Amino acid sequence: MITADGEVHSAGDTETRFSVQSITKVFTLAIALGRSGDQLWSRVGREPSGSAFNSIVQLEREQGRPRNPFINAGAIVTTDEVLAGRAPRDALAEIVQFIRTAAGSDDIHINEAVAASETQHGHRNFALAHFLASFDNLKNPPEMTLGTYFHHCALEMTTTQLAQSGRFLMGAADMPKLISTARVRRLNALMLTCGHYDGSGDFAYRVGIPGKSGVGGGILAIVPGKASIAVWSPGLNRYGNSHKGTEALATLARQMNWSIF
Amino acid sequence: MITADGEVHSAGDTETRFSVQSITKVFTLAIALGRSGDQLWSRVGREPSGSAFNSIVQLEREQGRPRNPFINAGAIVTTDEVLAGRAPRDALAEIVQFIRTAAGSDDIHINEAVAASETQHGHRNFALAHFLASFDNLKNPPEMTLGTYFHHCALEMTTTQLAQSGRFLMGAADMPKLISTARVRRLNALMLTCGHYDGSGDFAYRVGIPGKSGVGGGILAIVPGKASIAVWSPGLNRYGNSHKGTEALATLARQMNWSIF
Amino acid sequence: MITADGEVHSAGDTETRFSVQSITKVFTLAIALGRSGDQLWSRVGREPSGSAFNSIVQLEREQGRPRNPFINAGAIVTTDEVLAGRAPRDALAEIVQFIRTAAGSDDIHINEAVAASETQHGHRNFALAHFLASFDNLKNPPEMTLGTYFHHCALEMTTTQLAQSGRFLMGAADMPKLISTARVRRLNALMLTCGHYDGSGDFAYRVGIPGKSGVGGGILAIVPGKASIAVWSPGLNRYGNSHKGTEALATLARQMNWSIF
Amino acid sequence: MITADGEVHSAGDTETRFSVQSITKVFTLAIALGRSGDQLWSRVGREPSGSAFNSIVQLEREQGRPRNPFINAGAIVTTDEVLAGRAPRDALAEIVQFIRTAAGSDDIHINEAVAASETQHGHRNFALAHFLASFDNLKNPPEMTLGTYFHHCALEMTTTQLAQSGRFLMGAADMPKLISTARVRRLNALMLTCGHYDGSGDFAYRVGIPGKSGVGGGILAIVPGKASIAVWSPGLNRYGNSHKGTEALATLARQMNWSIF
Repeated sequence: MITADGEVHSAGDTETRFSVQSITKVFTLAIALGRSGDQLWSRVGREPSGSAFNSIVQLEREQGRPRNPFINAGAIVTTDEVLAGRAPRDALAEIVQFIRTAAGSDDIHINEAVAASETQHGHRNFALAHFLASFDNLKNPPEMTLGTYFHHCALEMTTTQLAQSGRFLMGAADMPKLISTARVRRLNALMLTCGHYDGSGDFAYRVGIPGKSGVGGGILAIVPGKASIAVWSPGLNRYGNSHKGTEALATLARQMNWSIF
Repeated sequence: MITADGEVHSAGDTETRFSVQSITKVFTLAIALGRSGDQLWSRVGREPSGSAFNSIVQLEREQGRPRNPFINAGAIVTTDEVLAGRAPRDALAEIVQFIRTAAGSDDIHINEAVAASETQHGHRNFALAHFLASFDNLKNPPEMTLGTYFHHCALEMTTTQLAQSGRFLMGAADMPKLISTARVRRLNALMLTCGHYDGSGDFAYRVGIPGKSGVGGGILAIVPGKASIAVWSPGLNRYGNSHKGTEALATLARQMNWSIF
Repeated sequence: MITADGEVHSAGDTETRFSVQSITKVFTLAIALGRSGDQLWSRVGREPSGSAFNSIVQLEREQGRPRNPFINAGAIVTTDEVLAGRAPRDALAEIVQFIRTAAGSDDIHINEAVAASETQHGHRNFALAHFLASFDNLKNPPEMTLGTYFHHCALEMTTTQLAQSGRFLMGAADMPKLISTARVRRLNALMLTCGHYDGSGDFAYRVGIPGKSGVGGGILAIVPGKASIAVWSPGLNRYGNSHKGTEALATLARQMNWSIF
Repeated sequence: MITADGEVHSAGDTETRFSVQSITKVFTLAIALGRSGDQLWSRVGREPSGSAFNSIVQLEREQGRPRNPFINAGAIVTTDEVLAGRAPRDALAEIVQFIRTAAGSDDIHINEAVAASETQHGHRNFALAHFLASFDNLKNPPEMTLGTYFHHCALEMTTTQLAQSGRFLMGAADMPKLISTARVRRLNALMLTCGHYDGSGDFAYRVGIPGKSGVGGGILAIVPGKASIAVWSPGLNRYGNSHKGTEALATLARQMNWSIF
């Protein structure tokens, strides 16, 4: 946890690396918005999905436009926007560099074995990507976009690094400024309404701050103007979010009086 | 608009009465939580719906439990919880009194003609109520609960009264305290994630504060700790929320730097 | 079972009265087509539904037009067409008379207690009727149409009477001719594709003849040109069709070489 | 058109080759049932789908089990069953040989250019295949099964050949017997209930005989015991079935009194 004055508070295995998975969707969205601006929203919506992170039903009903950038289909679209005709390794270099800059650490790497395994077993994501392509909502070949997607999801960080990487989302004076203040607010709004899949409403109700979870058990949560918090605990609740991580954040937010509401 | 120090700022027809419609769902939810506490959540969820305000599809998929208290089906359930076996007029008296107290004005009334018309043409809501009943998620006879529902939605207020009625949701020191601070925050969280139906994500992204819209063109928006704002403009966008009201709030929030994110 | 030469074959409790329930949908459809001709199809489709008999999901997706006349929503529409502004008792008199004529017996009656109970507990059907009304696909007040619907579904017949009542659907020379041959064929086609709800495909595959089931455990099956068969056995399979009745018909159709395919 | 006594009746361009597309699903189903028997039904259902030929919604709702073998997802499963670990060319050889035998002609070939184009643009089918794989309902690698699928759909036949190839489905004494009579009937039942996608009910109602359409504009229709008919006319109706072909079959069936109902 990093507060606005730069203090770091830690507890537990804060130096163990874990797979951040979907949390990287926050960073790829920041990059995609930087590259394409509001044009991105013609390809992906900004509404909570009302269904599971990997559901394809909504995609058929809404003609291939994912509901938001944090469900898998939406994150595949933002990855596709970042890829933009380049070789996957070039896009990945940009993504990794963005995250390293945000975290202030070069010691952040992709776990190739995890990426390979995801590629091997990622039939659901392949289905989503081809489905998007069938609606002409994919600019690069599915395997290219997915290769990039699987790799950035396989990034590993420690909770300390993850908390550091979220500093730019605090919107605080002394914090790194990677994107405009207006965009910081909008990313936080998206994290609040869509950051925990179909458990986003519950997270907003109980914790009351923006956050993005990953299936690896991590959560990055932002207290605007005040703190960037990373938690990690692998057991997931039925929405696919860290069970204990959510509880810890609820307790912390209550004790610190950090609800944004 | 009422700020935390009690100042009132007005513009336009602030003394014209209009039908607040779904905005009363905020008050009935506050009352229902007061009566039943967290037990209410066994009957209704806290997640954005991902579908229109009057959709019945989700209700079939999730076995008669509405996704949140602000879509019609959910508001029928909270009304049913408030009714609690009483005569509709008794429940309505409680609801009206709550709102009058919140607004600090006794000159707030139900428009009987509007209520009668809604009852006449409210087939979709009758469908929702009977559907809930078929899943045993209605404690009172459908016509009783709906009678109460149609009547509290037919309440008329001026924008000044509406802004006043939202003061207790500011959570500010000098404001009326009708419910606990913890519950205020939770109501605000629900308004942010679910207060504008399937346009809630967009409202959070563009305006950045909790709000609840009504089909009459009104919006009640809350800046936690800072202000309670009411706007009214009848033209609706495709999600059923006031088009100009949303724009006005977006401009105001940006100029006042009032985003919660 | 009645064969085309008028022979009657019986086994079991053929003189016990049971509630024919949805089987009456065949007769109300015949009457509705007689009254309105192909205009009826602007209000209801002719396609298998792909969902349960009482599902409301399809109705929302297809704007209030039920998929076929044999799911509940569709049968409510055909009943509404038969009612046509009359008093329910007049429409019921027509329906009962049609069935008595078809069966060649006046000893066929509505069980008022069953009708009353259905009305009491028929929330799902009330939901469907109001939903249809919300799409302007109901010409009479919901309670009128439903009153008629619940009553004709509460008709009681013996299997002998039921088999007799299906003679006009054989399309055989010596059988009663209540509707045109072209219409007989079309009714049989609808029974084959839609007569067993979401188990229609399975019934066609395994039994191979048109049939209509009722939740009371009865099935009326037609072998075009050859026989009209009624079976009754209350245990239902997961689609809501008589389990043993289906098995008996499968065996009979195989032994008699009666598949239409 | 071939009648049970072997007479051939022709009109129009009966010797022009066209892409039979989905009509081959009838033959692959016959082969799959021959290889695996009723075990096949654990992987695919027998019910009309109530949705479009390429819909993925049902597949998510029913956990990766396609509703029937004639929608795309179901045909991918039957192709997968026929492939059975072999090289695609071996499975294709079996399929082509089956059809040549059925048609009594060796001059039936796959159009490689069409197959290549389908592979190029077949994102929707790739999505379906990967989706099936994500539910473990694909035994071979998606690209293998799809390669086989795209190729057998790219088969070209003349209407004469197509009508000849359907003779075994007549179930008539003097016709080729490639599968058992019981299975012939079941294939015909499936064609009737599912052979025209979401227009199957309408086809049964208006034409009254089993048939299978292809997006190339062809329809193979069977009059059990009496005739095998092939029509071809490229313009499609809104369900994806030949518009004029359907009309021609309706007229023919009425004039010949060929309805099975």
